[in-house]
Amino acid sequence: MDNSTTSGKPIRCRAAIARKAGEPLVIEEVIVAPPKAGEVRIKIICSSLCHSDITFLKLKDPPACFPRILGHESVGVVESVGDGVTAFVEGDTVVPIFLPDCAECRDCTSNKSNLCSTFPFKVSPWMHDGSSRFTDLKGETLYHFLFVSSFTEYTVVHTANVTKIDPVIPPSRACLLSCGVSTGVGAAWRSANVEAGSTVAIFGLGSIGLAVAEGARLCGATKIIGIDVNPEKYEIGKRFGVTDFVDTRSCGERRLSEIINEMTGGGADYCFECVGKASLVEEAYACCRKGWGKTVVLGVDKPGAQLTLSSFEVLHTGKALLGSLFGGLKPKSDIPILIKRYIDQELELDKFVTHEVSLDDINKAIDLLLEGKSLRCVIWMDK
Amino acid sequence: MDNSTTSGKPIRCRAAIARKAGEPLVIEEVIVAPPKAGEVRIKIICSSLCHSDITFLKLKDPPACFPRILGHESVGVVESVGDGVTAFVEGDTVVPIFLPDCAECRDCTSNKSNLCSTFPFKVSPWMHDGSSRFTDLKGETLYHFLFVSSFTEYTVVHTANVTKIDPVIPPSRACLLSCGVSTGVGAAWRSANVEAGSTVAIFGLGSIGLAVAEGARLCGATKIIGIDVNPEKYEIGKRFGVTDFVDTRSCGERRLSEIINEMTGGGADYCFECVGKASLVEEAYACCRKGWGKTVVLGVDKPGAQLTLSSFEVLHTGKALLGSLFGGLKPKSDIPILIKRYIDQELELDKFVTHEVSLDDINKAIDLLLEGKSLRCVIWMDK
Repeated sequence: MDNSTTSGKPIRCRAAIARKAGEPLVIEEVIVAPPKAGEVRIKIICSSLCHSDITFLKLKDPPACFPRILGHESVGVVESVGDGVTAFVEGDTVVPIFLPDCAECRDCTSNKSNLCSTFPFKVSPWMHDGSSRFTDLKGETLYHFLFVSSFTEYTVVHTANVTKIDPVIPPSRACLLSCGVSTGVGAAWRSANVEAGSTVAIFGLGSIGLAVAEGARLCGATKIIGIDVNPEKYEIGKRFGVTDFVDTRSCGERRLSEIINEMTGGGADYCFECVGKASLVEEAYACCRKGWGKTVVLGVDKPGAQLTLSSFEVLHTGKALLGSLFGGLKPKSDIPILIKRYIDQELELDKFVTHEVSLDDINKAIDLLLEGKSLRCVIWMDK
Repeated sequence: MDNSTTSGKPIRCRAAIARKAGEPLVIEEVIVAPPKAGEVRIKIICSSLCHSDITFLKLKDPPACFPRILGHESVGVVESVGDGVTAFVEGDTVVPIFLPDCAECRDCTSNKSNLCSTFPFKVSPWMHDGSSRFTDLKGETLYHFLFVSSFTEYTVVHTANVTKIDPVIPPSRACLLSCGVSTGVGAAWRSANVEAGSTVAIFGLGSIGLAVAEGARLCGATKIIGIDVNPEKYEIGKRFGVTDFVDTRSCGERRLSEIINEMTGGGADYCFECVGKASLVEEAYACCRKGWGKTVVLGVDKPGAQLTLSSFEVLHTGKALLGSLFGGLKPKSDIPILIKRYIDQELELDKFVTHEVSLDDINKAIDLLLEGKSLRCVIWMDK
């Protein structure tokens, strides 16, 4: 790639813009500024659509903001680097990740935390410095999304949010590791540290729940119970390691936790809440095994949601409640491990990709996900 | 000890009986039946008074019941054994412990759980078989307490609730390990697994909170913050390793968690709630360090108390919430380790014993604890 013509200059390219809450994305030309100090400009190869993109497209009130370039699961190639950037060079294949990893702070250098202190994660409409690198052709500023904004041919991302990867992994698989699939696999592997031979209950078999199943399968779990309102998810789940299923609509008056406790003879060793409902976290906690059970929270509930546990149960059961952002993974060190496990044919990523479209058809990807027809739809920039 | 005259026969001896809620204990003669299969009869050497004894003395409604023999922190010598008992013989020095450890079930053979499945812990007025071994001289049945009932010269305890110990430890130190001190030390050592160099915040500096400090000190914590409504607890706390103190009455409008976050530069690595207030658990959770902080619940709140956490905070902070019954210790394997550490002069038990009385003066022990004058008062059966 010869970047001598673009490096240091604004790039005019195509992007999908979210102009108004709930309306289809609009393909327009935009201007992408050169990277500032500590940033890289990336030529996006492809993105996959995650449900959070749709959540923020539909959201009418803050933290919603428009016009915005959504997209945060992607892979690309570094086109140019800003001042002081030494960890990346032009031509590097990279995965931008919403969760910062500065590699230098107390958290990033600890093996116990994945929550960077230099650049705390937040749902911001800006780059870390509080400004945007995008403008439309009328000169209007376009907002960023989750420090990534990948529904564009070029984007600018801070190096804290970029992980260099082995380009041997196909782009349509690499992009999955940017968010959802890593979150689920990581929750089983890093946050819960699922032991071989154990029993796992997964509340919600969307892509993240299925990725938890995949992670639990990789860790050697022998009983993986999927729980979903849609009974069709059992057949899908089986491909990801799900061995048993509870159709929540057939539970009648019984509590879900009661059913899981019965199925597991006293509770699952690990419970994962992947829906984003505080009431389900409570059910998950109630059916994780006394003595050693772990309940891992992955689902994003609405702002202000409260989680209520019985004080007596917390004290007397020896259970643990854990939160898991990005599955507890440290982007710069753990994503390369997942890629190696994919290359070694252990981690199965192919089955997550159900559809592929071009940037022009990005709204079709949204429809497919909303209709429950796709797990991950890959959106190619060049096709 | 020649037990040929007592073995297999009822023993008439002295005991302190809780006859009515809130009233002083009454020293009476009682009849202690021989141990049934799987049980041992123990000649109690001494007991220490724990706050739970007083809680159940004062309680008017169920699970309160009278007449009852309270007491559950003690040490004694096996007088005789019931049918089938092979793990204990007459003359063994033993510590009865409220938390069962059958040594055979899935939990007791696992290194991850201390919650026996064969004999689940509960606040029962009976032996595990649902009957009592105590009657008064009028023939009235006396209730048991926490499977131990040690305010008597002789008691009967199931072998699941008995740990054999090295008699080299003085009885007035051994009895402490039956409940409170072990709970606190264990919470730091086993439940939280406090790392050397870390920062600890302890909510409530009663005996259990001070034992957490002792445990944290043993684990090598470098900053141990005590939090209490009583400013005098700072001086006491220093003897147990407390390095910093927050007087909750001097906090004004500020949240406790805000103050601890400030003192620790972003939160304590480990927080321990030792008071038994759900609202304090919430404060503790709010000031344990993002990324790796653990909040351990030891305090016993009133039945039905609810603990409320922000769903967003649980997800986004990577913190863990843990319950800790008996400090996560496994009685039969961990108590001998604590005793060894006492003998090796690492674990300091002496400073917990502030008073000693005879059985006749047991109500003085209650007054001392209620007045906040004692930490542990040892009650000698023979003196």
